[in-house]
This record gives sequence, structure tokens and C-alpha cells, in this order.
Amino acid sequence: MTKANFISFEGPEGAGKTTVIQSVLPEIEKLTQKPVLLTREPGGNAMAEAIRNLLKVQTEPAIDSWTEVFLLAASRREHVIQTILPALKAGHVVVSDRYLDSSLAYQGGGRGLGLEKVQKINDFAIMDPKTGQAVMPELTIYLDLPVAEGLERIFKNRTDKIDRLDQESLAFHEKVRQSYLALAEDNPKRIKRVDATQSKEKVLEDVKAIIAKNWR
Amino acid sequence: MTKANFISFEGPEGAGKTTVIQSVLPEIEKLTQKPVLLTREPGGNAMAEAIRNLLKVQTEPAIDSWTEVFLLAASRREHVIQTILPALKAGHVVVSDRYLDSSLAYQGGGRGLGLEKVQKINDFAIMDPKTGQAVMPELTIYLDLPVAEGLERIFKNRTDKIDRLDQESLAFHEKVRQSYLALAEDNPKRIKRVDATQSKEKVLEDVKAIIAKNWR
Repeated sequence: MTKANFISFEGPEGAGKTTVIQSVLPEIEKLTQKPVLLTREPGGNAMAEAIRNLLKVQTEPAIDSWTEVFLLAASRREHVIQTILPALKAGHVVVSDRYLDSSLAYQGGGRGLGLEKVQKINDFAIMDPKTGQAVMPELTIYLDLPVAEGLERIFKNRTDKIDRLDQESLAFHEKVRQSYLALAEDNPKRIKRVDATQSKEKVLEDVKAIIAKNWR
Repeated sequence: MTKANFISFEGPEGAGKTTVIQSVLPEIEKLTQKPVLLTREPGGNAMAEAIRNLLKVQTEPAIDSWTEVFLLAASRREHVIQTILPALKAGHVVVSDRYLDSSLAYQGGGRGLGLEKVQKINDFAIMDPKTGQAVMPELTIYLDLPVAEGLERIFKNRTDKIDRLDQESLAFHEKVRQSYLALAEDNPKRIKRVDATQSKEKVLEDVKAIIAKNWR
């Protein structure tokens, strides 16, 4: 079986992605006996960080959803060229906090632009310039959480109440989740869904088991 | 005939685009009896200016050509949404210093990414969100100049000599020009080529005649 040298983590805020990634990194290093590079999207290099800031800067008028797709694709392109490809070529394992599936789920699904159209644009962003092949993770861990629970976790330490979130926002997150689930169904070999409503310990255990299986 | 409410100017640096545009603006106002909005790419709004700066910031490593395409598409999207569409809807005439053809000629042709692929990405950038139609100029004035002459004009006030330009740079500009000429040939109704080797007066006369013809 293909060993997963490139692993991405996906899922909504509140699913505990960051904690899980930090906890499994030493495990991955032990399993693979390789240096492990932890990176994230959008981000990972100077250009990508600048684009990340750009996305936050303009609030009025709101950034058009297509602009968002283009900026994230630009950021992803530099991430692939400057960070991911050199690390893979150096024989490292790359672990990315979000990758292509986030654009598909959030802009393609959540914003309603269509997964195929967003994929079409990103095909150029993830292409290896040497081989012309798509640079894709062999393994994607999707931490799945019902929308209400994810939002509750985010807001639990704040005065905001879940019922203050408007219906539009709930509908958006629901579309994001449905897109992730559809992607997981369409890519059963690559995308492994983990039930993030479980205890932290159980989630971590599941994630470790999946990664181990991909390095057996 | 369709009156050209959206006019773009294209051509290499050194062709005198800026001077020509400034000189014909009053003429366009007189002809159309409409307010004339002058804008440019990349630029025209806060987001686009930030992206323009981004393109200049990263020199090492050089920005990947696809990243360039995505950033210019993001900038163009905001240009269309925030500037061009509202002005056209308000009944203004829009004159843009560069538009889509620049991406096709420079990135598609010059950088060798392919005009069709760059067009495919930009189809999403120039789409009117209400109608789904492409927002395109009815008239594009292409100021055409042989590569060597354009570069000579740029460098004439500098100590740099034309022969210091490497072959790669000359080949790049030659591919840009050939792409512009191919675009003009494929879009004879929209793109009007003006011979920019002529005297300033003659170039201006030609441009004015073309614009007048599109408002008869």
C-alpha cells in the first residue's frame, strides 16, 4: 500500500484539529522514522501569510467569494511550490492543517460556488510543475462534528450564545459539513472520517490507528 | 451597433498607453456625453492595490507564474465587482488601462501557461454575479510596437543598454506580442490594433477615429 507521506487534516473549527495534530506528530515521527514537517493553510510561507492577512483586511465591502477562491489558490500554489514539494523531495513527511478540501467545502459548498468549479481552478494550484501531476495527500483525516456542537464549542468560553448566530451562518456551516461528507464518500481511500463528538482520548486513538494502518 | 461603454487599452510598456489614454479621455466624454471613469489593472481599489504590492514584495524565490495568475484574477474580480459593474450600471463609461487580455498575453503567452488555461481561470473572475455573463470591454485598443522598439523607449533615459537585456527577456516580450496579435486576429470586432511606431499625433488620431466609430 502507498505510504502516506503527505497527510492533511480537515474539519470545522471546534473539532479539535490543532490539539489532535500536535498529539499525533510524535507518533507519526516514530512510525515513519522520518522528519515530520507541520504546516498549515492558508499560510506556511511569507507570501501565503501576506495573503492570509489580505483576507482579513477587507471587511467592507465583503470580499467576493471568487476573490476568496483566487487568493486561497495563490496561497496554496506558493505552499505547494515552496514548502510541500521540497519537503516531500527531501524525504520528509508533510502534515498540513487544511489543504484543498477546505476550499472545496467552504467556498465550493458553503459559499455555493460549486465544488467542480473550485476544483477546476485549484487543479492549476496543486500541479507539480515537473510531472504535471496533482500534488495531493495520500491520507486526509476529517474530524467530523455536527454544526451545532462545533459552534457551541467555539462559543462556550464567550458571552455570545449559540442562538445569536443567524440562520444564514448555520446554513453555511451545514453546507460545509455536507460537502466534507460528500468528499469523504467520493474519496473513501484517501479521506477517513473520524467522529469528533467522542472523547478527546477516543478521537486521538482513532486517528493514530488510521495513520498506523497507512504505514503498516 | 453596440456603443462601447467599456473600453480597455492594451499593449507593452513603452507604447505610450498612459499618454494616449489621458489625451482621449476628454474626447470620450464629449462623444458619449457621459461621465467617464478611468481605472487600471492591477489596481483600482484597496484590495487590488494590496495585491499589486504583494506581486512586488516577493522577489526571492520568484513568484510562481500560476500564483501570479491567481493574484491577478483576485484583483480583477474585486475590480469588476467594486468598480466596473457599479460604474456601468450607473451609466458611466469605463476606461481601463489593461484588463483580461493582459493576463492572457503576459501569463498565458509570455510565461507559457497557455491562453486557454488562463482564460478558464479568469472566466470566474469576470462573471457578472447577477447575469452569469462575462463582463468584457466592447472595445479594446491595442497599441502595437515591435519588442525591440518598446524596450528601447523604456531604457532610453537610462544607462542600461538594450543589448544588456538577456535573450530570455526578449523572447518573453516577443511571446507577449505574438499573443496580443493572435488575440486581435481572433477578436477582430472587439480588439483594434493601432500602430504605435507612428508619431504621437498619428497614434492619437487613429485611436480617436476608432472610438468615434464605436459611438456613431
